[in-house]
Amino acid sequence: MDNIKIHFREEQGKNFLDEIRRGHFLFSFVISYTKTCEISGITFAGADKESIKYTPPADAEFLHYGFCKTIRGIPMTPDGKPSPALLTKTALDSASIPHFVINAGSVVPPKLPYFFTGLSEGRNIEDEEALDSESFVQALDYGRIVGRSLASVTDCLIIGESIPGGTTTALGVLRGLGYDAKVSSSIPNNPVELKKQVVEKALTRLDSKDPSSIVTKMGDPMIPFVAGMLSTASEIGRVILAGGTQMAAVVALGNHLKFKAENVAICTTSYIINDDSANFVELVKQISSIPVISIDPKLDLSKIDGINAFSKGFAKEGVGAGGALIAASIKTGMDTNNFIKRIEKEHERVSTLQ
Amino acid sequence: MDNIKIHFREEQGKNFLDEIRRGHFLFSFVISYTKTCEISGITFAGADKESIKYTPPADAEFLHYGFCKTIRGIPMTPDGKPSPALLTKTALDSASIPHFVINAGSVVPPKLPYFFTGLSEGRNIEDEEALDSESFVQALDYGRIVGRSLASVTDCLIIGESIPGGTTTALGVLRGLGYDAKVSSSIPNNPVELKKQVVEKALTRLDSKDPSSIVTKMGDPMIPFVAGMLSTASEIGRVILAGGTQMAAVVALGNHLKFKAENVAICTTSYIINDDSANFVELVKQISSIPVISIDPKLDLSKIDGINAFSKGFAKEGVGAGGALIAASIKTGMDTNNFIKRIEKEHERVSTLQ
Repeated sequence: MDNIKIHFREEQGKNFLDEIRRGHFLFSFVISYTKTCEISGITFAGADKESIKYTPPADAEFLHYGFCKTIRGIPMTPDGKPSPALLTKTALDSASIPHFVINAGSVVPPKLPYFFTGLSEGRNIEDEEALDSESFVQALDYGRIVGRSLASVTDCLIIGESIPGGTTTALGVLRGLGYDAKVSSSIPNNPVELKKQVVEKALTRLDSKDPSSIVTKMGDPMIPFVAGMLSTASEIGRVILAGGTQMAAVVALGNHLKFKAENVAICTTSYIINDDSANFVELVKQISSIPVISIDPKLDLSKIDGINAFSKGFAKEGVGAGGALIAASIKTGMDTNNFIKRIEKEHERVSTLQ
Repeated sequence: MDNIKIHFREEQGKNFLDEIRRGHFLFSFVISYTKTCEISGITFAGADKESIKYTPPADAEFLHYGFCKTIRGIPMTPDGKPSPALLTKTALDSASIPHFVINAGSVVPPKLPYFFTGLSEGRNIEDEEALDSESFVQALDYGRIVGRSLASVTDCLIIGESIPGGTTTALGVLRGLGYDAKVSSSIPNNPVELKKQVVEKALTRLDSKDPSSIVTKMGDPMIPFVAGMLSTASEIGRVILAGGTQMAAVVALGNHLKFKAENVAICTTSYIINDDSANFVELVKQISSIPVISIDPKLDLSKIDGINAFSKGFAKEGVGAGGALIAASIKTGMDTNNFIKRIEKEHERVSTLQ
């Protein structure tokens, strides 16, 4: 596949891709929420401020039904760019990859059967600590259980997430743990300064180098939950962490829980890799020795604005799009043109839902 | 396996067992509740009346953790006979069969990650109709979704259930649909007369031959939910309906939804087959053309009272024990003596939890 690239640990990444080619995939979609996303200007994951909290469940519903129940239409940016769930759904459908939805702190539950974890949303890290310690422990424990269960029924577990404001809390966790992190964003002109300010303020509350304490103060429910999943699932089978900066934060916490690195890869879109405001590959190199694999969906070739916008920096990643695309691509061997056609068809169908 | 018998559709049953031998199993445990169980004397699924509603979540917790979180010890009859979850857990563990828990109407949620369906408990059919029609539709719809999802990640989906009072609502549905049904029970002196009276009273409310209307009036949330699972899962792979009378009611409703009969078998313990107060095999013959397969766990050979009690008519079946035992037996080829030893060891471990 000429549009799949390995950026780090090339040999290990090649072996990983070779191994998963032969097996079954399962996509798990972890939805969550942090009130940090309510800081004005920090995310565009939703058409307006009030709708942000509906984005994770709406993404889950769209993935499942092909339409949303919680909102009309599908999740959009304020100027009408569709959610990356469009990419994920097209990828999963084209390769017949099954999926499960896990609610790990979404304020609004999706209207479909999902894994219940009892986790509440995270607090705004600008003002207070993200989680209480009981929630942190439950997120880890329940993440471990879900990771073990899902890895037991597949060869390769893909983990994607949707948490508006999640790049800011990920930045917080990474900075708290001592990494030199910049972050990607769903907005082309990444509000870097704003995110930095929020994180700097949260950092002043740190009083311990203990990773649990750092995630509790700087993070969100998704990070410990997915780190728990990673730790158990990687002992049983292969794991694709499908995402950008958020998954780097998961790995950073995962280092302290232990996980089987040779079974894990971070898979994302080329748009994350090429984002100059972030330093994604360098960041992962600092944290761990797992491969970073990217796919270029070549959406710039599409004539449809809502689609080629992804290649221009809107919603570069999310809903595990990169990982889903990589899995679908190696499972079906489908070429880029064929895939773009499918996305366009799906976009056309979705447009009639508005 | 000399302790596995096929009672109906022998050829089809043999093929079914041959086919599933080669594949992966997944056990799904559907917990639910009907207020019908609160009628005095109708069930012993719980040490006393107040504890009945904790039995389904406690069974789920025991299956998962090996101990309960919602109650102390493990679910027991009033005189200290353990839950059939003991058999199910031993079977699943011995064959490394993974499991998922689904809450389809349990009043008390289990303390573990589970599939959330939004379903409420069923009402007491002696006094009022079991479900409103929205709940019935949601149970079917969500059952269909869960069945499709779970069947997509395994070769053979085992479906077990725990719903105290469930034999009475199953009897109600079967009688409502016109079958000549008697029912098994978790009590050796089956309170047949009491169950009949309750059902007769509920039957007076029937005003339609429509199966949806009958299940809505006479049933419980588990029956439409599992019937939904059956309809989609059987289109994708094999399905073991693990249970007795309750699963007969599921099949009776399933007939009206359509399901792929050649992919389905009812698997249960020999204690259900040998229960003279019921007529299980004859009942299934009336309803459908799917094989009935039983296993004799030979628990009468155990010297431990709590274990050989199962062979004397206490909790003859439940928590999908028969289906789990059959799956484990054909997967591992383990002989009965070996299995009894494992159960005894588990019983010993559990006794220290009290």
